[in-house]
Amino acid sequence: MKGFASDNYAGIHPEVLAAIAEANVDHAVAYGEDPWTARAEGLLRDHFGPSARSWLVFNGTGANVLAFRALCRPWQGVICAETAHVNVDEGGAPEAIGGTKLLTLPTPDGKLTPELVGRHLLGGGDEHAVQPRVVSVTQSTELGTRYEPDELRALADHAHANGLLLHVDGSRLANAAAGLGVSLAATTTDVGVDAVSFGGTKNGLLGGEALVLLTDDIGEGLTYLRKQTLQLASKGRFLAAQFIALLEGDLWRTSAAHANAMASRLAAEVRDVPGVTITQRVQANAVFAMLPEGVADRLREVVRFYTWDESTGEVRWMCSWDTTEAEVDAFAAAVADACAARVAAD
Amino acid sequence: MKGFASDNYAGIHPEVLAAIAEANVDHAVAYGEDPWTARAEGLLRDHFGPSARSWLVFNGTGANVLAFRALCRPWQGVICAETAHVNVDEGGAPEAIGGTKLLTLPTPDGKLTPELVGRHLLGGGDEHAVQPRVVSVTQSTELGTRYEPDELRALADHAHANGLLLHVDGSRLANAAAGLGVSLAATTTDVGVDAVSFGGTKNGLLGGEALVLLTDDIGEGLTYLRKQTLQLASKGRFLAAQFIALLEGDLWRTSAAHANAMASRLAAEVRDVPGVTITQRVQANAVFAMLPEGVADRLREVVRFYTWDESTGEVRWMCSWDTTEAEVDAFAAAVADACAARVAAD
Amino acid sequence: MKGFASDNYAGIHPEVLAAIAEANVDHAVAYGEDPWTARAEGLLRDHFGPSARSWLVFNGTGANVLAFRALCRPWQGVICAETAHVNVDEGGAPEAIGGTKLLTLPTPDGKLTPELVGRHLLGGGDEHAVQPRVVSVTQSTELGTRYEPDELRALADHAHANGLLLHVDGSRLANAAAGLGVSLAATTTDVGVDAVSFGGTKNGLLGGEALVLLTDDIGEGLTYLRKQTLQLASKGRFLAAQFIALLEGDLWRTSAAHANAMASRLAAEVRDVPGVTITQRVQANAVFAMLPEGVADRLREVVRFYTWDESTGEVRWMCSWDTTEAEVDAFAAAVADACAARVAAD
Amino acid sequence: MKGFASDNYAGIHPEVLAAIAEANVDHAVAYGEDPWTARAEGLLRDHFGPSARSWLVFNGTGANVLAFRALCRPWQGVICAETAHVNVDEGGAPEAIGGTKLLTLPTPDGKLTPELVGRHLLGGGDEHAVQPRVVSVTQSTELGTRYEPDELRALADHAHANGLLLHVDGSRLANAAAGLGVSLAATTTDVGVDAVSFGGTKNGLLGGEALVLLTDDIGEGLTYLRKQTLQLASKGRFLAAQFIALLEGDLWRTSAAHANAMASRLAAEVRDVPGVTITQRVQANAVFAMLPEGVADRLREVVRFYTWDESTGEVRWMCSWDTTEAEVDAFAAAVADACAARVAAD
Repeated sequence: MKGFASDNYAGIHPEVLAAIAEANVDHAVAYGEDPWTARAEGLLRDHFGPSARSWLVFNGTGANVLAFRALCRPWQGVICAETAHVNVDEGGAPEAIGGTKLLTLPTPDGKLTPELVGRHLLGGGDEHAVQPRVVSVTQSTELGTRYEPDELRALADHAHANGLLLHVDGSRLANAAAGLGVSLAATTTDVGVDAVSFGGTKNGLLGGEALVLLTDDIGEGLTYLRKQTLQLASKGRFLAAQFIALLEGDLWRTSAAHANAMASRLAAEVRDVPGVTITQRVQANAVFAMLPEGVADRLREVVRFYTWDESTGEVRWMCSWDTTEAEVDAFAAAVADACAARVAAD
Repeated sequence: MKGFASDNYAGIHPEVLAAIAEANVDHAVAYGEDPWTARAEGLLRDHFGPSARSWLVFNGTGANVLAFRALCRPWQGVICAETAHVNVDEGGAPEAIGGTKLLTLPTPDGKLTPELVGRHLLGGGDEHAVQPRVVSVTQSTELGTRYEPDELRALADHAHANGLLLHVDGSRLANAAAGLGVSLAATTTDVGVDAVSFGGTKNGLLGGEALVLLTDDIGEGLTYLRKQTLQLASKGRFLAAQFIALLEGDLWRTSAAHANAMASRLAAEVRDVPGVTITQRVQANAVFAMLPEGVADRLREVVRFYTWDESTGEVRWMCSWDTTEAEVDAFAAAVADACAARVAAD
Repeated sequence: MKGFASDNYAGIHPEVLAAIAEANVDHAVAYGEDPWTARAEGLLRDHFGPSARSWLVFNGTGANVLAFRALCRPWQGVICAETAHVNVDEGGAPEAIGGTKLLTLPTPDGKLTPELVGRHLLGGGDEHAVQPRVVSVTQSTELGTRYEPDELRALADHAHANGLLLHVDGSRLANAAAGLGVSLAATTTDVGVDAVSFGGTKNGLLGGEALVLLTDDIGEGLTYLRKQTLQLASKGRFLAAQFIALLEGDLWRTSAAHANAMASRLAAEVRDVPGVTITQRVQANAVFAMLPEGVADRLREVVRFYTWDESTGEVRWMCSWDTTEAEVDAFAAAVADACAARVAAD
Repeated sequence: MKGFASDNYAGIHPEVLAAIAEANVDHAVAYGEDPWTARAEGLLRDHFGPSARSWLVFNGTGANVLAFRALCRPWQGVICAETAHVNVDEGGAPEAIGGTKLLTLPTPDGKLTPELVGRHLLGGGDEHAVQPRVVSVTQSTELGTRYEPDELRALADHAHANGLLLHVDGSRLANAAAGLGVSLAATTTDVGVDAVSFGGTKNGLLGGEALVLLTDDIGEGLTYLRKQTLQLASKGRFLAAQFIALLEGDLWRTSAAHANAMASRLAAEVRDVPGVTITQRVQANAVFAMLPEGVADRLREVVRFYTWDESTGEVRWMCSWDTTEAEVDAFAAAVADACAARVAAD
């Protein structure tokens, strides 16, 4: 049964699987020295601009840890939101694998601002304090919100003015760009972003992400680091083929836009249900909500989704490239029914 | 010129230096297999109880990182206050050297409570989240406050009930015990603490700390880890001799009590000065205060001390084992003068 | 053009690709809590015995580093051959990512013996020396040789008698088992092996390996460690489907046996060519050889393969599941021609 | 009882202890921003040349690990002898704390040569191999031998020609320089060495080493790294005072020369004893020897010393700044007696 648990519960988009099959001919040089990888890297340049240098990797945690290892020296750290995936959902990999300290900031909506970032910039030059080097934002955020290009531009300018780099954890960058109606570059390269963990898995790939550097003269040793950080695929052509399918046409955008539309539809349908409170702006493919007590458990008997915040009971409903309107409508109806039953029971 | 910058600006207590000189005879087996070390370990058992196992190390950061490496497996983390020394003043060593993620909590006074700790206990068993293993508190705290034995008991009970261990960063444990008027065990072993980084340097040693484990069956491999964590002194007898001087008589307590008394005297003398606000309870050897604008800079022309919080201007005045009443009185008078001059200027 | 460079230049076996496509239906719980993963784990138990516990991962370096992180505490190390993949071909990941020291031993054929292992067992209990915990052997080895079951049994008995564990880097375990004509368990579980990095990628998968533990009470925290070590696939069903294709029938064996047969055929055809010296026993899917000067470069104009030892010029020819008899015959003829031309030129 | 176990069994030279006492006045800024540290750094420049930049640390393992962390990026490694202290006697700290892979080489006398180093320079640019960055030699070596200035010059030239740096583990550099009758610079700076772990502890300090960089533009972030690597003393003046005592006059040389002379005397006295074989050239303060079976154990009943090689029984006798001629003569006589008794018993 399909549900609203996560966009990585969805399968492989048929066009992506076809691209893998198409690449499955003959022998190809391993470890990314194959023509498919060259083509994928070219497409990433097409989308992110001619300065884009990219390294394909297995998963998002890998892309992020690799980014931090490449952009930070050991005495440098990464500023991020308390709710950032790198802080709460990567099993301590940034610290244990990369040795990177995360300098966290509380945020109501998962979004950083120059003012917030500034709080970590007071100990510059003190050998007792980790020196901030990277500001890492998630676009779209873990809370389903997104940064406007202007907001990212302000963060990038502030970062650069303070000798920092701006990294985007873009496991759902496509959802943000599709929601904004802009290109991938418009929400990254064009607003001063230095590095992106560009996600594919949540947007219909079997599995694959790309670390993309947009600024020259950063990321020394990245090719060595990717191998050492356990992220070098031996049959690299099959990672590359997936990105070719995603980026050669509009698949990246149509899939993401569809997921976004399903989230908007869901939010619209439940927003006015008595007892339901939508807790975050719906700007990508997620809906966050508070429900009357007991309703979430009842809904989970038939549809899987996660409680986001155990302390408050806030739930998260995630839509994906393959969520259908019928599924949204049926679930919205179930929410309404469960809330009504709950209200009646009170 | 002596000032109020830090208790580690002070020198070596004469009795400690004499003990080093006394140990400087003949040859002794290196790396801690000497009689002085055995005697120091015996004294630590006398003070912390018969279960105490100890490892002498070079410095406080070393003791803390060693503790975390010994008590945590790689997927486990340490809960601490945002203001904890391990979080803000150890150059990212817990993360970069130990691979340990710190799970921080905001506190007004540097003190944790079971309720605060509980906020990090919701993700138990989730492979995506670092699993809390240690609660680390500082006694006395970085803000000059201290835990009452009951407060530590509550933290220990809560930790144990949740499968966690309680670690005390005790670089100023002597100040806390002296302030409470109790033994070292009374504020550690007797209230359920599992491990202590017991500080000596800030209490009159040339340099030396002890990692003391109070609970059986924890800390596997610690002897190997001390060596690997760069904390094994080759001429161990000279670390040990310092602890003998500190612990064989009352030196640990008289030195700490004196420093505490000087802080209390300073606080008493400036508390009612117009323009001065004491911002934290004075329970150890530190005074935190807000001063009228410009006053701190003026005072610094003659006496060294630190601004604690760059964003607010809050200052910290630290007393040590060798601070004199005359120095306190002169400084308090200088504070009063500077404030008066400032008020007059307004 | 297909060549003899590496078994990971080959593509995906059609049955494996079909299994991926078959698993691409509906939604499935992410991160390995799906029915395909349960089925793959069951098949691994069928092949390795009922004690086998397994964790699917992305690649071989990931499996090995994960194994070492799970089996060693920080003060413990891994004994291996100087030529071991973990020592020379993993970009320093065991050390940089796992913090694991490798205790290497020179070997003529890539194989360890109890006597060799014994050389690293003299410093037991010395805090200045890393304590050996794991003996890691490669089966089949990086030099195309393999251990007989008796040899592994002797290593396992010796390891266990000394408090060590025996790990098999089995990126080509199937080739060894197929060559020996035995089950996977017969060359691992049944002879006392504790842990296996079981390779799939070189045997026809798109990409996937399994860390398999065969002994109870080892590998604490492995589920957390897999996530932290960047090896947890979000769409885990597609890793699992590949292993189902490999292990549900005989595919693992028929593919490996075919690759082995091609290597034997190649060796047989070139062994008596004047100027060619086969340098290692051909017991899996690789042929190592010395060629007259200039011959390797000439052959490389048409067929890709690697020089194994830059200092001697020794070459490696690798066969894979899709190498054909015609390709072997054509290459053997090219070798003979090039050698003859070289001899004529002298 | 004094013996021949290790030069770190000796105590503190009286002049060093006096210097500590002399520095114990008033308050001093912590963490190395005190006048004693500035003076020690000046003296290190006097001895190593005007380019020398230095960081005082606690111990030799700390200095070495700090050097490797500062000179290598994560994908780079350190070439050293198999017998190097960093490889066998530092508890795996280079790997576990620094993440640094050691690329070892077998040597009969503990000394590297350009030819040996060259064996590790064949995989340049291959992302699967750690990239050598530092050649680390020990001067004098762990086997009591030493490099002539020409030998070091050859290593430095070879290293630089290959883009590498030359590091000297100089825990006994003073013994080498004294033995050669040259300045500290003559065996380091003047022959192209880039970095030195300059030892003090084995030459009469309470405890203290200095990491000294001799080449510009290396070691970025070292001040941060020292703190993070747990090697920043809070009361830094007492580290510095020791180096002042050692370096302001000739103490470094007279102490080392004395220890060397005692080793030469011992070797001369036992060299012709029947049954004794001196196994290494005696070029510093150590004597390595093979003894008739049982003799070592008998000697150990009265004098402590170490077996160096458990597999052969080779012993090491170490002399220190405080070894007396009478002690040497008595021990040599005991060796002769024990050997004679052994021969008689046969």
